[in-house]
Amino acid sequence: MAVRTKRTNPTLVEVAKHAGVSRSTASFVLSGRTDQRISRDTWQRVEQAAKELGYRPNAYARTLSTGVSNSILLVSDYIATTSTANSMIAGILDAAMETRKSVLLAETRGNADTEHRLIADMLSRQIDAVIYASMFTRGVELPRELRDIPLILLNCWTDITRWPSAIGSVVPAETDAGRAITELALERGYSTGIAFLGDTSKSPYNDWKPLAFAKRLEGICAVLGERGLPEPELIPVGDWTVQAGFQAVDARLSAGGGLRLLICANDQLAFGAYRALNRAGLRIGRDVGVASFDNTDIAGWLEPGLTSVTLPYYEMGKQAATILTDYLAGDDGDAEPEFAKVSIPMAIVERESL
Amino acid sequence: MAVRTKRTNPTLVEVAKHAGVSRSTASFVLSGRTDQRISRDTWQRVEQAAKELGYRPNAYARTLSTGVSNSILLVSDYIATTSTANSMIAGILDAAMETRKSVLLAETRGNADTEHRLIADMLSRQIDAVIYASMFTRGVELPRELRDIPLILLNCWTDITRWPSAIGSVVPAETDAGRAITELALERGYSTGIAFLGDTSKSPYNDWKPLAFAKRLEGICAVLGERGLPEPELIPVGDWTVQAGFQAVDARLSAGGGLRLLICANDQLAFGAYRALNRAGLRIGRDVGVASFDNTDIAGWLEPGLTSVTLPYYEMGKQAATILTDYLAGDDGDAEPEFAKVSIPMAIVERESL
Repeated sequence: MAVRTKRTNPTLVEVAKHAGVSRSTASFVLSGRTDQRISRDTWQRVEQAAKELGYRPNAYARTLSTGVSNSILLVSDYIATTSTANSMIAGILDAAMETRKSVLLAETRGNADTEHRLIADMLSRQIDAVIYASMFTRGVELPRELRDIPLILLNCWTDITRWPSAIGSVVPAETDAGRAITELALERGYSTGIAFLGDTSKSPYNDWKPLAFAKRLEGICAVLGERGLPEPELIPVGDWTVQAGFQAVDARLSAGGGLRLLICANDQLAFGAYRALNRAGLRIGRDVGVASFDNTDIAGWLEPGLTSVTLPYYEMGKQAATILTDYLAGDDGDAEPEFAKVSIPMAIVERESL
Repeated sequence: MAVRTKRTNPTLVEVAKHAGVSRSTASFVLSGRTDQRISRDTWQRVEQAAKELGYRPNAYARTLSTGVSNSILLVSDYIATTSTANSMIAGILDAAMETRKSVLLAETRGNADTEHRLIADMLSRQIDAVIYASMFTRGVELPRELRDIPLILLNCWTDITRWPSAIGSVVPAETDAGRAITELALERGYSTGIAFLGDTSKSPYNDWKPLAFAKRLEGICAVLGERGLPEPELIPVGDWTVQAGFQAVDARLSAGGGLRLLICANDQLAFGAYRALNRAGLRIGRDVGVASFDNTDIAGWLEPGLTSVTLPYYEMGKQAATILTDYLAGDDGDAEPEFAKVSIPMAIVERESL
């Protein structure tokens, strides 16, 4: 059993008393002011007293006088608790640490009431700016509480003309990625029997419309069109899971041949596709090429290794936080800086499936 | 391009001026004080002015007067950014929301210098308490900065006699889980050829010693001992990955038969074990039973479905935050409450592999 006492942060007056100096002298020393004549001995006595009592300079008091809290609020739907998008947080924390901002976390699970309540509560704690993030790329309706606080959109966007406080958005460059993976496949000799697996009308969460599929398809079609090749066959799925991938590809293979390249909308679908291709006796990376998006751990676990396009979550988080902290550090209150619209490149990790 | 202005939170004086009342009257109204005689008309004018100007009551000012910030700091090594342990955050956020605490996030990546710096910085912002969390269960050395702030250990422990400010620890009940999975396997008729896959001398991160394997083994041995059965064969691995699981089981099968039940230390190892068993023509769940720990998505993706023991991360996070907020809400400053030592049960999710 441990003996415990509630923490009491000593006051400035207590430090002053302990050091045998006036409150204002203690204050000058502990705030590092050098415009006052204070003897070296006094200075040391105050510092020693602060150390002995465990005094912590009070950032809250500074906030009241400066109006700057050095805190950023991260509002997200699920990114802290989903296994892929959470890397955005690592990027945000790294950028925040560089500029000594603290990060507060609010997760709404897509519930509008929760969102209003959490944000109102958080804003009452004084924060300098907000990162509004989504677990997958989609359009969002911002809550009214964020109307007049500097705001950056992470992995989402909205009609910014209605949101003058929005200073930028950071999303993955999905269309470019669709282009790049198609170009790589063509280089590897896959120019016929091209299919894109993952067309779904079903929304995975809360009726949100993820836009990754449409944007990737745009890139794929652009490259095929430039080469005079037909658009890809679209293989629909129930959702983006291993089971759905297996069923869709299994059914497609039963319906007849001609499949030479399968671009999968995520690694889970590719996992299911592998199973169906294996069952049909087709050699992956030889009879049929497979490529995918997300580059999760799965891609490295499969045999043969799955060529997959990285979702640059860490970089997205870091960029968003950096744009925000740069903005907060700047003195452009009267200027009208451009809305920063940033697309982060998605690298392809090449393995043996293509 | 959006027109933006830096947010300026209106001051109390501005609200008072807008309402045509004195600063102190505005203050009384907005702090909800009912011990002053203020006319209903004045009350409404102030509230209207606050609304029009977008005035937010200042939690920082309240902190200065009450000494309570209603903020909790979550210090972790990697839990915000690893794909499994991050569910602890969902539990923490849910418990924090119930009591209207805000959660600040600091991630140290196991670097002691980063940890000292981040914590010192965070503590200067006034927080009421700290959750100190690890991505996997291990003993930790707490940084000295946390000496005198209420603290709960999440998924880790330390010598609490040296940490009087620690009020509790929350860990998964690994030994019980080892017992339970062994009892289930015996019920299913697997009583010979029992092996435990995952013995490793190599530490996965920063020389940390994860203790899950030893504690699970303790539970397994206890049940086997009670039934008069021999201890399990230990199959060593390089690390807890799919590839290591495949190699270890492949080598073990080449060395000879007799394997009837494989308990894997995590789902990735089980994934690799499946591959080796398939290659050897052994039917999983018939010729050889397989069970595992973690119950990640993988368990549901494999064929046959993998019986796996859940790591109750959400519940662990929620319990830790609840113990902390209960402590903060209590008025036991002079009492000496027991150190709360909580083990969260680990449920078995039964599928077809056992």
